[in-house]
Amino acid sequence: MSALRSRVEKLLSLADVHVGGNRPWDLQVEDERFFARVMVEGSLGLGESYMDGWWRAASLDGLLCRLIMADLDRKVRGVSAWLDGVRAYLTNLQSRRRSFVVGEQHYDLGNDLYRAMLGKRLVYSCGYWRDRDGARLHELDLAQEAKLDLVCRKLGLKPGMRVLDVGCGWGEALKFAAQRYGISGVGVTISREQADYARGLCAGLPIEIRLQDYRELGAGADDERFDAILSLGMFEHVGVKNYRTYFEMVRRSLSDSGLFLLHTIGTNLSVNVTDPWIARYIFPNSMLPSAAQIAQSCEGQFVMEDWHNFGADYELTLQAWLDNVERAWPQLPARYDERFRRMWRFYLSASMASFRSRHAQLWQLVLSPRGVPGGYIAPR
Amino acid sequence: MSALRSRVEKLLSLADVHVGGNRPWDLQVEDERFFARVMVEGSLGLGESYMDGWWRAASLDGLLCRLIMADLDRKVRGVSAWLDGVRAYLTNLQSRRRSFVVGEQHYDLGNDLYRAMLGKRLVYSCGYWRDRDGARLHELDLAQEAKLDLVCRKLGLKPGMRVLDVGCGWGEALKFAAQRYGISGVGVTISREQADYARGLCAGLPIEIRLQDYRELGAGADDERFDAILSLGMFEHVGVKNYRTYFEMVRRSLSDSGLFLLHTIGTNLSVNVTDPWIARYIFPNSMLPSAAQIAQSCEGQFVMEDWHNFGADYELTLQAWLDNVERAWPQLPARYDERFRRMWRFYLSASMASFRSRHAQLWQLVLSPRGVPGGYIAPR
Repeated sequence: MSALRSRVEKLLSLADVHVGGNRPWDLQVEDERFFARVMVEGSLGLGESYMDGWWRAASLDGLLCRLIMADLDRKVRGVSAWLDGVRAYLTNLQSRRRSFVVGEQHYDLGNDLYRAMLGKRLVYSCGYWRDRDGARLHELDLAQEAKLDLVCRKLGLKPGMRVLDVGCGWGEALKFAAQRYGISGVGVTISREQADYARGLCAGLPIEIRLQDYRELGAGADDERFDAILSLGMFEHVGVKNYRTYFEMVRRSLSDSGLFLLHTIGTNLSVNVTDPWIARYIFPNSMLPSAAQIAQSCEGQFVMEDWHNFGADYELTLQAWLDNVERAWPQLPARYDERFRRMWRFYLSASMASFRSRHAQLWQLVLSPRGVPGGYIAPR
Repeated sequence: MSALRSRVEKLLSLADVHVGGNRPWDLQVEDERFFARVMVEGSLGLGESYMDGWWRAASLDGLLCRLIMADLDRKVRGVSAWLDGVRAYLTNLQSRRRSFVVGEQHYDLGNDLYRAMLGKRLVYSCGYWRDRDGARLHELDLAQEAKLDLVCRKLGLKPGMRVLDVGCGWGEALKFAAQRYGISGVGVTISREQADYARGLCAGLPIEIRLQDYRELGAGADDERFDAILSLGMFEHVGVKNYRTYFEMVRRSLSDSGLFLLHTIGTNLSVNVTDPWIARYIFPNSMLPSAAQIAQSCEGQFVMEDWHNFGADYELTLQAWLDNVERAWPQLPARYDERFRRMWRFYLSASMASFRSRHAQLWQLVLSPRGVPGGYIAPR
């Protein structure tokens, strides 16, 4: 046994993962080059060697959850992660020019993949797995509907209101709000595929979809102000250097008596980069905010009315997405080849592990410009 | 009319307050020296001249709320406020030596005053004016009981648990939790009067009361770890320089699977001092935390499970306290003289104004050391 192999095995055993073991979360090596790659490249090498078929596990999420909880990613960190940190410090990874990259690389992948994965509605953010009475839901479609309804209720939407959706995706939230709550509104996205789809989805409803960077909103002389603003799963692409700009845009686009709902994944520790594997293959130029970064960035612009954490629901959502997509591969086009499928499985499984280990959170904040007179009571 | 008077009148009119006007929130001047004093000393002069009977208003809280909402305190700021800022920067206002000052000056004032003011239970923090179904309550005693019950439910208290109350006041929360939820526990306070009272209140219950600084908790070799920790209305005395120390103390005193409930007044903007009048007459060495300061200070120690804002309930609580104490003055000892009464009225009215204007918040955070497996659902 090589010294390298023995070192990797020792590290993995700190997380109770055995190489060649027979528990679902144990790791089966298919190519011995795995050991060198994971030592040199850390999480990037772990993900890439999985994509290349150099190792497997019956329960990939179970394995990754144990690695996260043992903080192994901090013990084995390659040069690339350090370089990513330096790069994020020196440049604005989420500048206007760069922002369209994630649109093209991720969100324009093909609506067929997302349609297979996301269920009845194309909603690409965490569902809310409880009904209005707090009872547990058991279906993705119901959980997404409950989430959209929760957002509308938290915002107090009423017929006639004008609503802005920052990062509107395929337009499902605006469609839901228009049909169920009688609002009109505007959605912006930087994905051409999403914008085209959203326009079709919202046809006949008083909804306008714009292919636009959020920084262009409300900057003109003909400022448009909305009665309510929501942003579901888009803040993860904004980047800490732009948080204040983002909140300023929301503030100037919102009426003084309006509410803003921010729905975002959060992380327990303040950092300015994402995992290097995620950055390379899934979400270029993205990063998760910490509570401190959010609180600092919106200070002076908003009163924090409510901060709801339902991160555990993201594990359920991701499990449903993974089940859907595994079932759908045979029907999906051949351009999603075997390496892509392994990449996608690794992405969803690693995300599940982040939420199960409670290293990642799902936050919904309700913010008001001046504080709701008499106080705000947050629905659940 | 003097130039000074005209300048003050102009400033007040920005807040829609008229000198000599006939609306409840208008200001009636009894002594012309008022104008100079308020210009030179800002909020300190405003409060002191009220205590001296130099002015009055039918609705003191209504007047103060208008001043706060017009940001007048920032437009008229005396040298003393600036000096307080410098002093807070250079010294630790909440050092161990200084910490007992607020115990002696405020909390040891006399239990007779607090008994008259606070209602059936001696609970000196914001009530929760809703029942378990979310219906509005209408009595202080019910609101305090609902708050104590909410805290116990959020912490998931069960018979046999050991609970720590950091800043236990007169012991009401521990008594309630022991009687209703079957816990045992420890309370610490830096007020001798509170400690004596709390020992009597909790006699016969498995509750120990200590006259102790929070920094001494869990620092010894014989560390005691608790199943749950609560801290109601004490964090306002900790001071930003000690926030990390405070959270470290809580972390090392809490079992890995335990929950911590932090109940504190919060402010919209990060500062390191309090209002100079409040600092001199009511709470020496206190300061209100911002969301950013809290989030920064507990980062890396806790997962933020829930952040509940019910600041509007503090206005109701303060109104009830004010009504109680105004009714009780004739029965209270003569050492509470007319100037003291005016001081107390100004304190409660200014506090009401802070909450009504939404400049101050009441936060309950639930924090867990590693994240509750499967997620935490916060009761309301």
